[in-house]
Amino acid sequence: MKLGNLVGERFKERPSDCVIDSHALMVRGAYIKFVASGIYSSFAPLKRIFHKIEAIVREEMDKIDGQEVSLPVVLPASLWEASGRCASVGQELVRFADRNKAPYLLGMTHEEAAVQLVRESALSYTAYPFMIYQIQTKFRDEARPRAGLIRVREFTMKDAYSFHTSQKDLDRFYGKCYQAYQKIYERVGLPEVIAVASGAGIMGGDISHEFMLLSAAGEDSIVICQSCQYKANMEVAENIVENQKDELSYPLTQVYTPDVQTIDDLCSFFETTPDRLCKAVAYRKESDQGIVVLLLRGDYEVNEAKLKSKLGCEIRPAEIDDKSGLAAGYIGPYQLNASSDVFFDRSLENTCNLICGANKANYHYSGLDISRDIGDIGYIDVAKAVDGGICPGCGSHLLSVSRGIELGNIFQLGTKYTRSMGMTYLDENGQQQYPIMGCYGIGIGRLAACICEARHDAFGPIWPMAIAPWQVHLCAVRADNIEVKTLADRIYSELTNRSIEVIYDDRKVSAGVMFSDADLLGVPLRVIISPRNIKENKCEVVSRDKTLSLKIDMDQCVETVIGYVRNGK
Amino acid sequence: MKLGNLVGERFKERPSDCVIDSHALMVRGAYIKFVASGIYSSFAPLKRIFHKIEAIVREEMDKIDGQEVSLPVVLPASLWEASGRCASVGQELVRFADRNKAPYLLGMTHEEAAVQLVRESALSYTAYPFMIYQIQTKFRDEARPRAGLIRVREFTMKDAYSFHTSQKDLDRFYGKCYQAYQKIYERVGLPEVIAVASGAGIMGGDISHEFMLLSAAGEDSIVICQSCQYKANMEVAENIVENQKDELSYPLTQVYTPDVQTIDDLCSFFETTPDRLCKAVAYRKESDQGIVVLLLRGDYEVNEAKLKSKLGCEIRPAEIDDKSGLAAGYIGPYQLNASSDVFFDRSLENTCNLICGANKANYHYSGLDISRDIGDIGYIDVAKAVDGGICPGCGSHLLSVSRGIELGNIFQLGTKYTRSMGMTYLDENGQQQYPIMGCYGIGIGRLAACICEARHDAFGPIWPMAIAPWQVHLCAVRADNIEVKTLADRIYSELTNRSIEVIYDDRKVSAGVMFSDADLLGVPLRVIISPRNIKENKCEVVSRDKTLSLKIDMDQCVETVIGYVRNGK
Repeated sequence: MKLGNLVGERFKERPSDCVIDSHALMVRGAYIKFVASGIYSSFAPLKRIFHKIEAIVREEMDKIDGQEVSLPVVLPASLWEASGRCASVGQELVRFADRNKAPYLLGMTHEEAAVQLVRESALSYTAYPFMIYQIQTKFRDEARPRAGLIRVREFTMKDAYSFHTSQKDLDRFYGKCYQAYQKIYERVGLPEVIAVASGAGIMGGDISHEFMLLSAAGEDSIVICQSCQYKANMEVAENIVENQKDELSYPLTQVYTPDVQTIDDLCSFFETTPDRLCKAVAYRKESDQGIVVLLLRGDYEVNEAKLKSKLGCEIRPAEIDDKSGLAAGYIGPYQLNASSDVFFDRSLENTCNLICGANKANYHYSGLDISRDIGDIGYIDVAKAVDGGICPGCGSHLLSVSRGIELGNIFQLGTKYTRSMGMTYLDENGQQQYPIMGCYGIGIGRLAACICEARHDAFGPIWPMAIAPWQVHLCAVRADNIEVKTLADRIYSELTNRSIEVIYDDRKVSAGVMFSDADLLGVPLRVIISPRNIKENKCEVVSRDKTLSLKIDMDQCVETVIGYVRNGK
Repeated sequence: MKLGNLVGERFKERPSDCVIDSHALMVRGAYIKFVASGIYSSFAPLKRIFHKIEAIVREEMDKIDGQEVSLPVVLPASLWEASGRCASVGQELVRFADRNKAPYLLGMTHEEAAVQLVRESALSYTAYPFMIYQIQTKFRDEARPRAGLIRVREFTMKDAYSFHTSQKDLDRFYGKCYQAYQKIYERVGLPEVIAVASGAGIMGGDISHEFMLLSAAGEDSIVICQSCQYKANMEVAENIVENQKDELSYPLTQVYTPDVQTIDDLCSFFETTPDRLCKAVAYRKESDQGIVVLLLRGDYEVNEAKLKSKLGCEIRPAEIDDKSGLAAGYIGPYQLNASSDVFFDRSLENTCNLICGANKANYHYSGLDISRDIGDIGYIDVAKAVDGGICPGCGSHLLSVSRGIELGNIFQLGTKYTRSMGMTYLDENGQQQYPIMGCYGIGIGRLAACICEARHDAFGPIWPMAIAPWQVHLCAVRADNIEVKTLADRIYSELTNRSIEVIYDDRKVSAGVMFSDADLLGVPLRVIISPRNIKENKCEVVSRDKTLSLKIDMDQCVETVIGYVRNGK
């Protein structure tokens, strides 16, 4: 294809509303066009990248016996009522009525539709296991779309659903899919993607993994052990604290602490460090509006995801008012108003001589010894893991916390959907059973954006050969020179005839414009025909990642380039 | 792929709710699954057919320099407000509000989104012409979904939009696209699809064609000349009538015709034929609620599409009440209440001695001579063309009217969208101009259904090789026989290794079940390995369309089959 015909305006200036590089480059390179918050159109180069990513995903899904199907974008609400999600999912689910006032929704995930498709097709155990998948448009009305294609509302997703007659068989297939995912990230040029244990969120079920690209642009926190294989999303990462109790436990003593409320204030006032404080955080439960007070060591933060999962309901920070019976800023475990649920984080286990709120304004206690002063209470794990923390896998103190972007996820769903939607089969003994499900997702657009995020320089993306919009970018510098034009035309047609995908720039523009456009298109191999090269009977072959820069004889040009393309340079 | 692993339950009984064969076969063969009115999921065989059709469409669009892009399914209503369609399109357009109460809609066509994508990319005449296209999910809330995939609400469509700086250039490209469409229908196995002139409907613009499969299952009426190339949708087909005025014009005479109202009643009463009647049909205009009376010869029907187009507004049959001043059942042109708009169809031109209503109950006139009794009025063309009518192309009396299913359409849009959405470019003289657009659609699902409708027998679809879900259906009859199984396994792996797409049935089921499943899957070539064949060291190769039935030596099986596949048998 000729670059002159490519629709889309490329430009130099970084748009001011782009917070991450991939977003800026995709706008500057005319890959995407903003339509509405979290909704983009794609120009041809991105569509070509999508096709290549989708082909790789399809191949890997087919290799593990996936069958590609297609499920509707618009779903009758009745399907989600059967599973209970119509009520449990919030505003991110778009609901509307059709012309007959029948309720519909836009699918943001398709467990229900998958079960509806196969419900009558697998009535005997002999039909199992099987996996269906699709690559399809979804819509999720995100509260905060951000960062270009990283978090959008309309997106293309590969979603797969597997059905099994035993947990063992699901485990086996789950492992195969895990490997297929690793293979996919490798093939699209992101071998550094890691799998981390994760919470299942609205999906239901237990075991699940997220595939993460570590990136400062990410919204997720990932806890990784530098010594063993342990990797987990912060939301589910266990936090282990080993305290050594002081030999001497001082008595509990009330101290007048006027206007001393923050951790910093307390540390200055008592001339101590945060790990000597017992801090309190209050939440209100969405379920019964009751208040939960959480106590934890002053140097730890609450992991709200773990707390929610412990409580089994949504929570929000509690506003402490007079009715609550709590003394805002001075809450502590000793003689705390009993109308609240109180939980102690395990960071407080085996401690003494702590400073804590005295449950009345302007007073704290020093010398708190929980086992002595509060009694025999249980501790739970609801604090965030920290850099340098103890690894639940190997016990080393080598945990580190990184930012990551989720690029895919795999879930074991159990029988949540088959049970609620009445999908059954007869087992070997003629007994009716519910199949066990797994589900497996990859966002295609986010994957493309992440490849750009991980593979770019200041001038543009550096697309890996496997997913690049074209394989070769041919520049005819000074295309008004008849010799240049003739030679470049010939190379274009020879490469094209050999099934090489070439974007050919024969515009009458300066070499500067040509090369900056080529940088923005990020095609891995560049071939430059110019008057200077022609004098030496040479052409230049350079790689977008700058690892290659050759002058080669003109008559070897085509073969050399094909060699590099086939080797995936 | 092994048939035993294919998800989807095939069955024999024709579902009672299927009015056309393709719908019944697609349900019976587990191609589609009903989700909600006009909304279907697709099983793997149909998804494979879609991929092949889409690949052909893509190739032909790329050949005429199309660039594949993608536009959103969910569009901000503001885009359609700019073009005016948000107000002009009715309930088929799904509208909803997002979580911030912003208005959105589901794209049922993408002219606005296409203009929005390219508006800033083609500011100079040098950037023209160009064409963008996509293959994408759309939703149209049809009042009456019907016939399986023929008329659905959610559908996959290839929609293309071209942009030009002159009508001449649009004409040139329109012609190329017309040919590309013919090529597409040919390649997917429907060379009999014809192009007919059509009305543009809600698209705006003037010149347009529809591509039609003639079929009794169709909803459209097509007027075709048996002598020349003339083909038009009934909605726009010109109706030519040549009347020969009687030599003697009798005087206008009022006749008492108690309870004589219908055409049949009148013909009996007056002992005449319908062409001697001047009938009246009344409509109410949606625009100003005024009444329109249409007069035409008694043997013609009103073409409401042409009338709407003449009036420039929607119409509905008028209910004649006392307020209207019209005598229901007795309306005629002579001394007709002047508060109505009155139009005379050209079927009345050059007539006399007609019978017509007398505008009072129970009376008619005979001897109507319009030029004498009404005066010098104009005639318009608002009647339906008829079988045996006069061709507007060649003047022969060889028009025929057939039923057809619309499989694609191409429109010349003019500047309707570029003007309303403010897309301009600078021409050679530095003047701002609006680009001229064309748009071009093909519904992928309907095309698949129509191929089935045109290519099937009582037992199942007969898919053409180019779009068949698999190329070869391999049956191991008596797969419990070790010799059969070994040979069939070998042929399966040899064909698969040679990149032939094989569906392999090695289930332990009867030959009857095997063959009826194969008929429902409609794969063009069938290879049968059975104990009886093995005894003769033969295998059977038969084609689904029954034109081929061979016993060939086992060692020539693979090469023979590959030969047929490559020849597109």
